[in-house]
Formats: sequence, C-alpha cells, structure tokens
Amino acid sequence: MNADILIKNGIVLTMNDHGAVVDKGAVAVKDSLIAWIGPDDQTGEIQAAKVLDAEGGIIMPGLINAHTHASMTCFRGLADDLPLMTWLNDHIFPAEAKLTEDMVYKGALLACAEMILSGTTSFCDMYLFEGAVAKAAHDSGMRAVVGEVLYDFPSPNYGPLENGFAYTRDLLEEYKGHDRVRIAVEPHSPYLCAPDLLKKAREIAEEWNAPLVIHASESENEVAQIKEKYGCTPMEHLAKIGFLCPRLMADHCVVLTDNDISLLADNKVKAVHNPESNMKLASGIAPVPALLEAGVCVSLGTDGCASNNNLDMMAEMNAAAKIHKAAALDPTVMDAKTVLTMATKNGASALGMDGQCGVMEQGKLADIIILDVNRPHLVPMYNPMSHVVYSARGGDVRHSIIHGKLVMEDRRVLTIDIKQAMAHVRELAKTIA
Amino acid sequence: MNADILIKNGIVLTMNDHGAVVDKGAVAVKDSLIAWIGPDDQTGEIQAAKVLDAEGGIIMPGLINAHTHASMTCFRGLADDLPLMTWLNDHIFPAEAKLTEDMVYKGALLACAEMILSGTTSFCDMYLFEGAVAKAAHDSGMRAVVGEVLYDFPSPNYGPLENGFAYTRDLLEEYKGHDRVRIAVEPHSPYLCAPDLLKKAREIAEEWNAPLVIHASESENEVAQIKEKYGCTPMEHLAKIGFLCPRLMADHCVVLTDNDISLLADNKVKAVHNPESNMKLASGIAPVPALLEAGVCVSLGTDGCASNNNLDMMAEMNAAAKIHKAAALDPTVMDAKTVLTMATKNGASALGMDGQCGVMEQGKLADIIILDVNRPHLVPMYNPMSHVVYSARGGDVRHSIIHGKLVMEDRRVLTIDIKQAMAHVRELAKTIA
Repeated sequence: MNADILIKNGIVLTMNDHGAVVDKGAVAVKDSLIAWIGPDDQTGEIQAAKVLDAEGGIIMPGLINAHTHASMTCFRGLADDLPLMTWLNDHIFPAEAKLTEDMVYKGALLACAEMILSGTTSFCDMYLFEGAVAKAAHDSGMRAVVGEVLYDFPSPNYGPLENGFAYTRDLLEEYKGHDRVRIAVEPHSPYLCAPDLLKKAREIAEEWNAPLVIHASESENEVAQIKEKYGCTPMEHLAKIGFLCPRLMADHCVVLTDNDISLLADNKVKAVHNPESNMKLASGIAPVPALLEAGVCVSLGTDGCASNNNLDMMAEMNAAAKIHKAAALDPTVMDAKTVLTMATKNGASALGMDGQCGVMEQGKLADIIILDVNRPHLVPMYNPMSHVVYSARGGDVRHSIIHGKLVMEDRRVLTIDIKQAMAHVRELAKTIA
Repeated sequence: MNADILIKNGIVLTMNDHGAVVDKGAVAVKDSLIAWIGPDDQTGEIQAAKVLDAEGGIIMPGLINAHTHASMTCFRGLADDLPLMTWLNDHIFPAEAKLTEDMVYKGALLACAEMILSGTTSFCDMYLFEGAVAKAAHDSGMRAVVGEVLYDFPSPNYGPLENGFAYTRDLLEEYKGHDRVRIAVEPHSPYLCAPDLLKKAREIAEEWNAPLVIHASESENEVAQIKEKYGCTPMEHLAKIGFLCPRLMADHCVVLTDNDISLLADNKVKAVHNPESNMKLASGIAPVPALLEAGVCVSLGTDGCASNNNLDMMAEMNAAAKIHKAAALDPTVMDAKTVLTMATKNGASALGMDGQCGVMEQGKLADIIILDVNRPHLVPMYNPMSHVVYSARGGDVRHSIIHGKLVMEDRRVLTIDIKQAMAHVRELAKTIA
C-alpha cells in the first residue's frame, strides 16, 4: 500500500465504539483519510512518503474545541477576577468596540497556533468579522465551524441585523464545499436575540444544512432575565419557538432544570461544556453527569481567552474530569474515557461531523495527534487514557495531522509563522491596553 | 559587584509585601542568596560567572509545593475514578505493601525532575522510607522538608511505632544543619494516630524545632469517624490535645466548621490546600476564602501522583484560582495575586522558612524560576501575575535556580539524569502493575 504518512511505534487510542486500543500500533494516512490502522509489525508493505516514529507515544484523534472565540486571544488576561458586569462593561465591551477585521484575523491566527500546539485539530467559533476567522482556519490548516454572531442591536461589523443575515449567507456561499471550513448560523443567546431573529437563524441553518450555535443557560442571571421576559427557562423558551433541534450546539448549559435536560435530550441538542470558563466567570458547575445520563451528547470547549485564559483542551479535559467529582462528592461520576469521548467523538457530533472524524478508524478523516510520553510527568504509564486526561499537558503533543496534512512536526507548526503571529498580536495589544 | 549568576532582561515579580514588580528588571545571585534586584539598565557594574537572558520573561520566586508524597510517581494513573475505599484498599495499599527504600528513592528522584521542570523549587513530603526522599532532595538540588509517616499500626518501613520515633530522630540528627533538606515530624492523621502518638510527635518537633505535618479534615468520612470516636471535629480534637500550633502544617482542611477555622487562625496553624487532589478524590472544595478571611496562612500543594496525577504547581494554581469562584458563584473571592502568594510566600511560611524564601528580595535565599513568555499561549501579556496563574503551564519554566545553584537551564535539568530516572521507574512499574 502507498501512503502519504505512516505513524509507527505508538499506542493507538481509537476512541471508537468498542474503545479499541492498539498497544503497539501504527497508522497510515492517504490523502485526507486514515487508510489503515494495525499492529506496528505489519507495516512492512506500506510505502510512505513520510514516516513519523511515535517512540511509544499515544496516537489519538485530534481534540475538538467545540466552543471558543478564537480572536479573543487579543484580550488574554486583560481583566480577571472581577464581577461579571464590571468585566464586561468596563473591559471587554470597550475593547471589542475597537475591533477590526485585521485584529480578528491576527487574533484567530495566534489562536490557531496555540490550539495546534496543544492538540486541537478542529474548533467551533463565534465572533465578529467571522470571515477573518474562516480565513485564519483556512490558512492554518485547521478544521473549523465558524459563524458570525447575531444579536438584536447593531454589530460593529455588519451594522443592522438584516446585514448580519446577509453576511452569514455570503460566508455560507463563499465556503460552500470547502474541505475544512464550514459556516454556521450563530445567534448569540436567548437574552440578546428576539424570537424572530432565532426563527430566521434556524431557517437559514435548515436551508443551508448548516450547524446552529447559541449560548444558553450560562448563568443564574441569564435564567432570571429570561424568566422575567418570557415566563420560563431559556431552554423552555427555545423549545417553545421551535429552536431546539439536532443541528443546534448549546454552549455552556450551566443552569438547567430537569425539564431543560429532558428538552435537550428529546430534541437531540448538542450541549457544549466549558468548565474552566464557567469556573473563572463564577457561572457555576454544569450538570454534566445528569446530561450524559439523560443521553445528551456533551462535548467540550475552552470558551475565549478572556475567560479561561487559554485554549488548551488538555487542561479543559483535566478540569472536566475533576470538577464534577468535587461537585457530586463522588469520584465515579466522570471517568477519563467519558471525558476523552467528549473531547473527540462527541465534539465531532456537535460540529455536524458525526462519524467523519473524532475517532481513529479506516476511512475517517485523518485528524490525528501524537503525544510524547517520554517525559517525567508521564512516567510510568499504566493507562494511556488516564494519562491523557489526568497527567498530560498541551505541550506534550508532538505532531499534529489535520485532513491528512502534517501541520505540526516535533512541536514546530508548519502552517503558521509563529514569531510573526505573536508579534502582530503584541502590536495590537498596545492599542487595546 | 561580583555575582555567580546574573539574570537579565525580565519582569521581576518580587511577591514581597508591597507587591513590587520590576518591569525591565535584573537579579544577581551570589552564593545561596539574592544579592541584588534592580533595573536591567543598571547591571553594568555586575561581573557574573553566568549570565541568563530572560528574554522579557518572568523572573519570580520558585514555587513551593507544600504537600506531596513524591515517591507516589510510581503509582501515577494506576487507578482512577473509583470509590475512595476501592481505590485505597484494592489498589494503593496493596501497591504500597510492596514498597522498598529503593523504590521510594527512584520515585522521589523522578518526582524531583518533574517538579523542577514545572517550576517547583521546594516541597514538603510525607511517606515511608523518608530517608530515601531526603536523599533524592539532596541529590536533585531541591529544597525540601521531609518526614517519615507515623501511625498506630506497624509500618512497612520501621515496624512498630516506637521505631518510627527513632527513625525520625535519626533523620533529624543526620540532616541537622543541612542547607536545603530539613526533617519534619509527621503523624498521618487524627484517624490513624492516637492522642499519645500525636503528643509525642509534638514533643519531638518542639525539642528539635522541627515542622510538624498532619493530614486533617480531608473528607466527610474522616470527620464522621472522629466525631464517633472523640465526640468532636478533627480540629477540635487536635486543639483539645494541644496539637495545634504555629509549626503545624495541616494538609487538606476541606471539611471545616466556623469553629475549626477559628481554631486554625487562633493557633496560627498553616493550612495546606490541595484543590486537584480534593476534586479527584471527591473530597470536596476547601473553604479557602473563609480561611484567608480569618487570617489563616494558606499554602498550596499537589498531593501525590496517585490522586492528581501530576506534581505541577502551575496547574494547581490554575485550579485554586478557579474552583472557589465556581463554589461561591463570585469571581472576586480568589484573585491571581492571592493564589500566587499561596504558592510562594505562604508556602515558605508553612515550611518554617518565613522570610527566608518565597519572595524576591536582597538577602533572601535564591530560589528563582524564569518563565519563557515568547509562546503563543502567553501572548499578549497585559498582566504578568494573571499570566502565571491563568495562562502559563509548567512547561513554560525555562530556568530554575535553587539555593543559588542553577538546577535547570533551557529546560535541561542539570542535577538529574532524566532518562535514567524515567527508566528506573518504568522498570519498577512492571512489578507494581
């Protein structure tokens, strides 16, 4: 067999339905796909243009960051430890009022560098000037679902809402058939979007068969606002207007009633869990064990760098695995495999790519990361899944392949000029501070 | 001025009482001490044998891991996500029954490598065969407070309790006057140590002016046991028998009443917070904001690798800064500076080195780390303290100096043969699994 890339001498965590692990395994990549997975001693017939030696490391699906605002790297650490409204009104909103398409591109490109360096191969983004994020994803070699944020008031990008729909349609048209970048329809939240906006957003998503993304039930404050306005919870409100559907990613889902959880499950909505942001903004702890118990597909995201303050999915997995144990006073509520599934397979489902990536199987998209385990903090290794979730760091990711292309080799990102990307954002920060 | 090491071109976070930060700063080290701190452009007169260019990075006190079981690196990821008693009785205790002095040394040396690589310069340890941990600390160049664990039943190391006191006295004698390694007296916990043991331990600590270390109030289960046995909380019990005192480090302090907090404050006990272990073992969330409010000195520790599963104090700071916001639904309860103080200055107080290290000031011990900020996940930088706590990773620590000696340069540990340390523990793991 001919292959473009052959990864040898690793432990393959397939994350498939059988939880198959190939202890001394190898993976062949051809074009954009995984062409073969098998024992390392059966690769003799494979001719590959590029051979990567995993050196006993972990070969696994690339991580999927199911909710972020990539360009907010520009605001990393600008303001922390403040009451939510002070943080938003005195720091984030004034900073965002100065946003330009150029800033959004440069911030997103730096974000792509950070994500590749910490093992993320796909992300779902919501922001302003989202065409620039789509371009950054295209340029960096990452897989992404991106969408312009829509709300009732005028946007610093497109002006009045009607232009926001037009901007979204233009992006949908521009990226039609793109092999890595897909456009979503993304109303901000039930508290910033009137029912008409939400209905229209859903229509466009159906028309284009596009993912639909919204922030929902993030905080007690939001729930109180929606109850005051509509007499029900955010999820009940979204259900009433027919917004809940399988193509919907609901970000945060922190403050939920039992009925909200049933609505998410019944409508096959994809819930996206952002534990680090929820902690840092003091939103609370999402009822993820209950969501999973109800059969909801829960994926994982970092949220933006103003509320995290990094885009490291390895750290996010670590937090997700631990926080629910403390909340439930039960160490069995969230095991390593569940968390790893959230960050891979469930992320693919959330982004509308169920069965296309997020698992390592022949014929799936070749979005693959390779972790170096020859480091003191990863010795010894009794259980590779435990290591990925509880011991590893973003910096342990050594190689990354997206859509069959090598985008990082031995920690060197091949698709982005890192020095320039850092210099650009440092320069922008002078005008922001 | 002559110096051994001159660190140039960095941002100096002194962590002193004034919170002084030197933006374009430099630090000179002579013998074991910080000889000078000042502006980078005033180093012309300093002749140094070794010059380190921080390249705009952060120069700060080394992190102090105030509670760990270093040698448990051997059990990293051996068992996770299990009910506490299953984890202990079916996995950890059987593994520990096979412990030897050789295993403890090799595990501790690997731990020292991991700690140095993630910015820790001092640690406080409790385990079996603690002479081997003292030796690992000595050999690795780390600063440490170590003590043999004492409990009512026979120990796999020393046998009957009386020998445990003798073992402790022998260590105290052996390390008397050592410049980096200090011996503590370490009864395990109020539930495994009778009042007579605790009183005797306190006597030895007073006699030798040694730190005293205990696990206390870690879980609801422990509190219930002590209430059943003594009719009061663990802290009340320890207060009654005269065990609470300023030289005492009380590890965990998760389940506390208001009266327990007052007892800790009144007796100037040093509380050690282990958020990641407390989450992973589902012990709960320690009332750290209330402890700080009451004036208790709270420091930070990782606990052992069986319940974390790493020794990374950067990750521990990140968790400490976030978890209390979620618990209190208030983002102002635990700011970056407070957390950084816990991991440096308060750690020094806990280890009985108040005013000797944990801050960057002329005349203090030169325990210093230098962080590389020229990495995508640390760009831009508005606030160095926020960066250290919310964005940085253990892997960002580039150089480390302990007691005036360079122990890591450009991520190369100079005091430990890392490959050999990893190979030794991998070999041990085969007999453990």
